[in-house]
Amino acid sequence: MQIRLFITGGTFDKEYNELNGKLFFEDTHVPEMLESGRCKVDVNIRTLMMIDSLEMSDEDRKIIAHNCVHCEEDKIVITHGTDTMVETARILAEKIQDKTIVITGAMIPYKFGSSDGLFNLGAALAFVQTLPKGVYISMNGKYFHWNNVRKNKELGLFEEML
Amino acid sequence: MQIRLFITGGTFDKEYNELNGKLFFEDTHVPEMLESGRCKVDVNIRTLMMIDSLEMSDEDRKIIAHNCVHCEEDKIVITHGTDTMVETARILAEKIQDKTIVITGAMIPYKFGSSDGLFNLGAALAFVQTLPKGVYISMNGKYFHWNNVRKNKELGLFEEML
Amino acid sequence: MQIRLFITGGTFDKEYNELNGKLFFEDTHVPEMLESGRCKVDVNIRTLMMIDSLEMSDEDRKIIAHNCVHCEEDKIVITHGTDTMVETARILAEKIQDKTIVITGAMIPYKFGSSDGLFNLGAALAFVQTLPKGVYISMNGKYFHWNNVRKNKELGLFEEML
Amino acid sequence: MQIRLFITGGTFDKEYNELNGKLFFEDTHVPEMLESGRCKVDVNIRTLMMIDSLEMSDEDRKIIAHNCVHCEEDKIVITHGTDTMVETARILAEKIQDKTIVITGAMIPYKFGSSDGLFNLGAALAFVQTLPKGVYISMNGKYFHWNNVRKNKELGLFEEML
Repeated sequence: MQIRLFITGGTFDKEYNELNGKLFFEDTHVPEMLESGRCKVDVNIRTLMMIDSLEMSDEDRKIIAHNCVHCEEDKIVITHGTDTMVETARILAEKIQDKTIVITGAMIPYKFGSSDGLFNLGAALAFVQTLPKGVYISMNGKYFHWNNVRKNKELGLFEEML
Repeated sequence: MQIRLFITGGTFDKEYNELNGKLFFEDTHVPEMLESGRCKVDVNIRTLMMIDSLEMSDEDRKIIAHNCVHCEEDKIVITHGTDTMVETARILAEKIQDKTIVITGAMIPYKFGSSDGLFNLGAALAFVQTLPKGVYISMNGKYFHWNNVRKNKELGLFEEML
Repeated sequence: MQIRLFITGGTFDKEYNELNGKLFFEDTHVPEMLESGRCKVDVNIRTLMMIDSLEMSDEDRKIIAHNCVHCEEDKIVITHGTDTMVETARILAEKIQDKTIVITGAMIPYKFGSSDGLFNLGAALAFVQTLPKGVYISMNGKYFHWNNVRKNKELGLFEEML
Repeated sequence: MQIRLFITGGTFDKEYNELNGKLFFEDTHVPEMLESGRCKVDVNIRTLMMIDSLEMSDEDRKIIAHNCVHCEEDKIVITHGTDTMVETARILAEKIQDKTIVITGAMIPYKFGSSDGLFNLGAALAFVQTLPKGVYISMNGKYFHWNNVRKNKELGLFEEML
């Protein structure tokens, strides 16, 4: 069983630029994270973009959806900024019903101490192997159906809407 | 939905003793790891023992089984040394059929850089929420049925027997 | 021999705010860093401010100078943002000739992986114990006299002017 | 000004072997540590051995002394296990009077979280640049003359004998 892993950026992959003190994107850390997790699942990684999800456009979401539709695998994990994760999930759910898609991200960059990234990646890879077809968000050790989740920006966590 | 998390020690929780240069057990790091993962799942933690799994006796396994049988929750994660994880899984499978039990561990202590602990804990918590009743081992991003898994000590990974 | 350690903020102490994705100051990490270094030097720590050095005003520098003049110790380490470290050194050198003052900082926040903070703090504490009276900047494992140093912003390092 | 850095092993460079759960030596981490510290001092590194200092023989100490005598640099840092650091310092002091030699080490492996290694390396490099000729041990943020220091094994720190 092969799993497709699409990378879109987000806090997960933010780096600290020591020349100007700003956070930025360079290469993804996901392969390094899978290695750290001694992950032996057959994962096929492809970087689609490296952006902050606040800057993700409709066009970007079309690219993600297009890739989800046309890849061979029917189990897909997407790393994504947390701010608009729910919006991307909705677009994907409209277009794709016959695959299991799990979107995850991080509140703290992987390169920072005490990041949630490795925990979230482990959980997302487990959920994608076991959940029925559908589009889900996996954060905080939980999974959420795409149509029953929101980010609580005050508390910095995801929760069911009802 | 509440999950019970039993801690038995293993590489997960090994510390470095700076006075004698040996590895030892002190307190478990699991609560700190759940905090790092921003885990909001309702997890009920109990430490049963803090030992190297090579030193786990039949009596110790009886204690683990007893606790799995008698706890209220029907979803249980156990952190465990990797060397005899398979043996404990077999004992539990003989006695418990009506719960989902996921045993996990780590190849590298959490406190060491590049530990797989956080990844494994995220995956184990996800698997226990989604797998049907039974006893499983979760390592390397995968889950294994208790009766079809072995540790490959040369490669330092878990694999199916067939 | 007691050393006075004044904290003014800078990259050293920047944290990642997971609610808005911005870097900010909270408490200083210097005591934690000294503990990590198993430092047994008699260090008397006082936080004067917690700011980015680009925002340090003349008034702030007067506060730093005032504290350097009036503290009992004649060996002083100051943690400081790297961008205006040289300017603060000049102000201090004008007012104080009878103490050894070593200013240090970091290019990467301590909480980020691969920070230079701990290395720099160790070097600054060593230099302050051994250099003659004067005002110095300690970065990149070197010490510089206040009047012969500049930050090379392209390369992200400190260098002598001649 | 060039500094010679001799590596002999010690806790500094210990790794965790995930196949057998034991600590062992592989390559030194010192170049990686200097990079992390953004060290721009001209350091000439040479690994002499990679051993636990409890297993260091008279022959090994002769090799270290021989290298200290014959290298071009008159400023030398040696990384060394803490248990017999004092003994090596004594041997070196008998044979070498015209160089500044600073021996340092770590209580916790660099690869473990909360290691003192980076702090100690920063301090040792600073001391070797500023101390007069002689043989010193640098630990705990302090420097000690070779003939007035002992390791307090109960407390895990170095202290003056008088």
